[in-house]
Amino acid sequence: MARNIAILGATGAVGLEFIAVLEQRKTPVGELRLLASARSAGTKLRFRGREIRVDEVGSRSFDGIDVALFSAGAAASRTWAPVAVAAGARVVDNSSAFRMDDGVPLVIPEINPQAIGDAAIIANPNCSTIIMNMAVWPLHRVHPVRRIIVSTYQAASGAGRRAMLELENQTRDVLAGKPAAPKVFPHPVAFNLFSHNTPIGEDGYNVEERKMVLETRKIFDAPDLAISATCIRVPVLRAHSEAINLTFEQQITEDEVRAILCRAPGVKVVDDRAGNRFPMPIDASGKDECYVGRIRRDIGQPDGRGIELFVCGDQLRKGAALNAVQIAECVGPR
Amino acid sequence: MARNIAILGATGAVGLEFIAVLEQRKTPVGELRLLASARSAGTKLRFRGREIRVDEVGSRSFDGIDVALFSAGAAASRTWAPVAVAAGARVVDNSSAFRMDDGVPLVIPEINPQAIGDAAIIANPNCSTIIMNMAVWPLHRVHPVRRIIVSTYQAASGAGRRAMLELENQTRDVLAGKPAAPKVFPHPVAFNLFSHNTPIGEDGYNVEERKMVLETRKIFDAPDLAISATCIRVPVLRAHSEAINLTFEQQITEDEVRAILCRAPGVKVVDDRAGNRFPMPIDASGKDECYVGRIRRDIGQPDGRGIELFVCGDQLRKGAALNAVQIAECVGPR
Repeated sequence: MARNIAILGATGAVGLEFIAVLEQRKTPVGELRLLASARSAGTKLRFRGREIRVDEVGSRSFDGIDVALFSAGAAASRTWAPVAVAAGARVVDNSSAFRMDDGVPLVIPEINPQAIGDAAIIANPNCSTIIMNMAVWPLHRVHPVRRIIVSTYQAASGAGRRAMLELENQTRDVLAGKPAAPKVFPHPVAFNLFSHNTPIGEDGYNVEERKMVLETRKIFDAPDLAISATCIRVPVLRAHSEAINLTFEQQITEDEVRAILCRAPGVKVVDDRAGNRFPMPIDASGKDECYVGRIRRDIGQPDGRGIELFVCGDQLRKGAALNAVQIAECVGPR
Repeated sequence: MARNIAILGATGAVGLEFIAVLEQRKTPVGELRLLASARSAGTKLRFRGREIRVDEVGSRSFDGIDVALFSAGAAASRTWAPVAVAAGARVVDNSSAFRMDDGVPLVIPEINPQAIGDAAIIANPNCSTIIMNMAVWPLHRVHPVRRIIVSTYQAASGAGRRAMLELENQTRDVLAGKPAAPKVFPHPVAFNLFSHNTPIGEDGYNVEERKMVLETRKIFDAPDLAISATCIRVPVLRAHSEAINLTFEQQITEDEVRAILCRAPGVKVVDDRAGNRFPMPIDASGKDECYVGRIRRDIGQPDGRGIELFVCGDQLRKGAALNAVQIAECVGPR
């Protein structure tokens, strides 16, 4: 029952969250092996009351490991996933390295756990993709969605722990009358926002937006689903928000949407119109559920097939570590 | 040529911007009369090198005034606009009091200056509406738009000067480990965002969203234009951003859109894909132009009728004071 788990990238924002999630969920763990690059090796981290030293990742790092959780970037995943697999481990990879590869399942356990099968590498989807689809899938499953238009409000955590620190420190500087001096982000983030800083393709979409489109189609097994995304970074620490406009194949009522979302696993409906209380990143931060609200019929689609939603989800939890640990809990031994 | 101008709400965020805009545009001004409630009367403000005392507004305040610029809230507008009109002034009102009234023109000078006519009261549209339509109108004029879906990222300035101070002070508190203590906004704004805090109607849309829908239809004289808006407050000081998805009646190319926007008055195209440089609120702050970028064909509309845009505009300038002063410059004597 208890399996040996390795974490690659243990000292990063997602790595630290892997440890917290394993502890909080009481996931049965035999050995917990913490791995990182040479730069972070030697750091000591606590897990279930004891200190564990972070080791530098190497060719023997995955010997005896059942499940390896990776969050050290796509390049590290490409280097170390074959090593872990050769050592007999199953890899749950949080990077984009393998997500679109044929034969690598891309999994949100509430949506497509059956895709895991006996794959050696299972990919964890992009954070914005997970958070959007926690709300969209339960609807799509019952009432097929034809088109999605999403605008994101993405937290600094998506760019890692140094980006979160940059948001805090730069904001402190700006409040003290000093200029913003961006290092991690290409643009000032204090009291500002900007288009997601991933490369832009020929069609004008950036890599983050492309992930939301292609990954959603793969997870839903809906290759023709029409999706457009605009991904924007905002000065928020760790929960992503998304304004989602849906067009369904058939008419759907607001009440049906609310009823479906109220019973959807991993979803919390926060939709208090009288109290003007809806999902907010500070409420969703540190929480496992994705918060959904502003549920309303799209008045721009008078045929009754349109629904608007607003979603917030913790980027480090359901957007990354929690989803990966849920996958790890689903995988059996190889 | 030089006319006597009164400003009601002179000490507010928009009031101060009225003064700055009149000065910077070298608008011919005879007397400048500054008016406010009793609470702010006595404040001294500078205009063109001299100090002007702010007077408490009263029944004789508009005698001899040619144009009165109002930005003191809808209740003050309802009280004082009839007084100003009776005194022979023409009122440019920044509040929502009269915007949807028949016979009150709702004007963006780049779009419908002809609507001004000889109206005694001219309404200045909602800030998010102006900023969106500076980009949408030049396209709609040539290639009719059938449907707009917009998600906003609205600055604190839209809720006034105290809201801007709250954002700064609350952020300072949070960085110092103190709890956020919201007073102006109903929710914490430091490192957070929330659904626009205007009342929600039965259809689930809030008042700000409803303004964007109804005011756009009135300004465009397009009563059937399909529009849906999601209005979100973000921790930014004074420029609003908006992700806009458009569906046109006919096919349109990205190049046509870019060409039209490049020559549109009051619009600055910032769309550097290679440099990943697009409109940002800190760049648009204090500027007269609305910045437009992320121009691309909507890949979710394979019939070629969809376009995505991202717009930033200074909420206090084009979103309020500049637009009102431009209207004032258009109106003749009564």
